[in-house]
Amino acid sequence: MAEIAPTMQAALDAWEEVEPALRRVYAAMQGDATLGVPATSVRMRNVLPRAYEWVDGSAYLNHVILVRKARNAEPPATLRTDPLVYQGGSGVLLDPSAPIVCTNPEFGHDFEAEVAVILGDTPLGTTADAAAASIRLVTIVNDITLRNLIPDELAKGFGFFQSKPASVFGPVAVTPDELGEAWRDGRLHLPMNVWWNGTQVGRANAGPEMHFGFHELIAHLCKTRAYTAGTVLGSGTVSNEDPAMGYSCIAEIRMREIIANGKPSTRFLQPGDHVRIEVFGTDGDSIFGAIDQAVTG
Amino acid sequence: MAEIAPTMQAALDAWEEVEPALRRVYAAMQGDATLGVPATSVRMRNVLPRAYEWVDGSAYLNHVILVRKARNAEPPATLRTDPLVYQGGSGVLLDPSAPIVCTNPEFGHDFEAEVAVILGDTPLGTTADAAAASIRLVTIVNDITLRNLIPDELAKGFGFFQSKPASVFGPVAVTPDELGEAWRDGRLHLPMNVWWNGTQVGRANAGPEMHFGFHELIAHLCKTRAYTAGTVLGSGTVSNEDPAMGYSCIAEIRMREIIANGKPSTRFLQPGDHVRIEVFGTDGDSIFGAIDQAVTG
Repeated sequence: MAEIAPTMQAALDAWEEVEPALRRVYAAMQGDATLGVPATSVRMRNVLPRAYEWVDGSAYLNHVILVRKARNAEPPATLRTDPLVYQGGSGVLLDPSAPIVCTNPEFGHDFEAEVAVILGDTPLGTTADAAAASIRLVTIVNDITLRNLIPDELAKGFGFFQSKPASVFGPVAVTPDELGEAWRDGRLHLPMNVWWNGTQVGRANAGPEMHFGFHELIAHLCKTRAYTAGTVLGSGTVSNEDPAMGYSCIAEIRMREIIANGKPSTRFLQPGDHVRIEVFGTDGDSIFGAIDQAVTG
Repeated sequence: MAEIAPTMQAALDAWEEVEPALRRVYAAMQGDATLGVPATSVRMRNVLPRAYEWVDGSAYLNHVILVRKARNAEPPATLRTDPLVYQGGSGVLLDPSAPIVCTNPEFGHDFEAEVAVILGDTPLGTTADAAAASIRLVTIVNDITLRNLIPDELAKGFGFFQSKPASVFGPVAVTPDELGEAWRDGRLHLPMNVWWNGTQVGRANAGPEMHFGFHELIAHLCKTRAYTAGTVLGSGTVSNEDPAMGYSCIAEIRMREIIANGKPSTRFLQPGDHVRIEVFGTDGDSIFGAIDQAVTG
C-alpha cells in the first residue's frame, strides 16, 4: 500500500484523496484467505508510532469517582457538565506487544484500557454535531499510569506529566462504519476485555456509561484550538458501576477493596505479570487485534 | 535544501547524517549578500508547523511566584527542587506573523515570551550531564495563554488544557554553538525583548534567573519517558525580579499593580493590539527573527 500512502500519518494527511484506493485494497483483502488474522508469531506494530497530539479524556464517571476517592480527592463540581481531558505525550507511542518496563517498583505501574479515535483535520470551534465527521478511525489504548507519582504531580498544578509514561496502541484501527451498530452516539457499544496474568478481570461495556461521547469530547477540545490530522483522542479508562463487570485498571479494584475492607489487597503491576486487552465484535472476531504485554523489570 | 532534507522534521530525524551537508549550505550562505536578513515583506514560516511534542517548563521562579499570587495560589513547596512542566498541544503551531485571534474577549488573552529548544531523540533516563547533547536547536516562542480560563481548568486537576491555545514559534532556530558565549549552563544569556503596541515592555535577561537549565529540565522530562526527535521544550515565561527589566507577559505587570495598588490597571490583549518578541546578539543582529503578531477579533 506504500504507493497509496507511505505511512498512516500520510494517509491521514490526505484522507479524502487516498480513502477510495485504501477501501479498494481492503475489499480485495476480504476475498483473500491468506490475508486473514495474522498468526500470533507476527509482531504487530501500533497504528501510529508517534502522533502529533494525544489527548486523553476521562469520560467514564464511575472511574473518576472511584479513583479520586482512592486519593482522597473530590470529583470536580462540574463532573457531569464539563469533560475532563489532559494532554498526553505523543512523540513515543508503544507497540501492542511492547513490554511494560517497571523502571522503579515504587511508581505503582497500572494499566488503563481505553477506546481511542484518530481525527482528521479538525478546526477551532467544531461543534458536537459536526465532530462525528472528524473521526477517521477507532482503536484501543493501554494508557499506562504511574499511580504513586500522581499525587505529587497534581499537587504542583501542572497536570499528570511524569505519572503518564508512553501509551500503548492497538495494532489495528477501523473506520467507524466498519463497527456497524456497535458504533453509535459517538461511543463503542462493546465490552472492553482485560486479562491480567491470564485471568479475565474486566469486561466493562464501553458504550452506555461513557458520559460524554467522542463528538462531545471533540467539541470540548475545539473551544480554544484546532487539531491536525492524526490527533489521537482517548475515552479514559472504561468503567461500569456494576462491580460484576470487573475493572479496566488496578486502581479501581484497589478502591473497591478500600471501601469494603478499609485497605487495598491487590498490588500494582510487577515484573513477570502479563496484560491483555481486546475487543470482540458480535460475530466473535477481534476488531482491533490485541494489546498483549509482558511486564519486565 | 530539499535534497538534503525535505522538511525540518526530516532533518531532525536524521540529524547525524544531514548535519554536515546543512552546515556546508550555511557556510556558503554566509558569503552571499543576497541571502541575508529577509525583507520584512517576506512572510516567514515557523520552525516547525507541527511537532510531535511540546513540553513547556516554568523555570523562572519570579514568574511562578507572581502569577500564583495573582490567582491567590501558593507556589508549590518543591518550587526550587522539582521543575514545573506541562504538556502542551503540538499538532498546530503558528507562524511568527500569525494573528492572535481573540475568539472571546472574556478569555483574557495574554502573551508569554519564552526561549525553546528542539531536541533530537532523547532516551528514557537521560541525565542532566548527558542532556546537553540532545539540544539540536534553540528558538523563541510566544506561548499564548487564556488567563481567565486557567483557574477553572486547574481546579479540575488535569492541567491547563483549554487555557493554552496554539503556541507561536520564531522563524529561525540556531544550533547552540552559533550562540557562542551567550549559550552557557543550558541557558540563553541574552535579553528577551518584548514590545506591546510599539512600546518596549520587556527586556528581561533569559539567563541568570532561569532556575533550572534546559539540561536539568530534560533530565526531569526523562524520568519516566523517552522523546522523539523534534520534541520542543520551552523555558517558561522569561522573568526577572527587578521590575526595571519589565515583563514578558501581561499577567506579571497586573500582579505588580495588584501588589502596589490593590487592583490591576493594565488590561489583557484586545483586537487592534500588536505584539513583537525578538532577541539580539551582542553584535546587534536579530538571532531568531521576530515574532510579530497583530491581535484580531
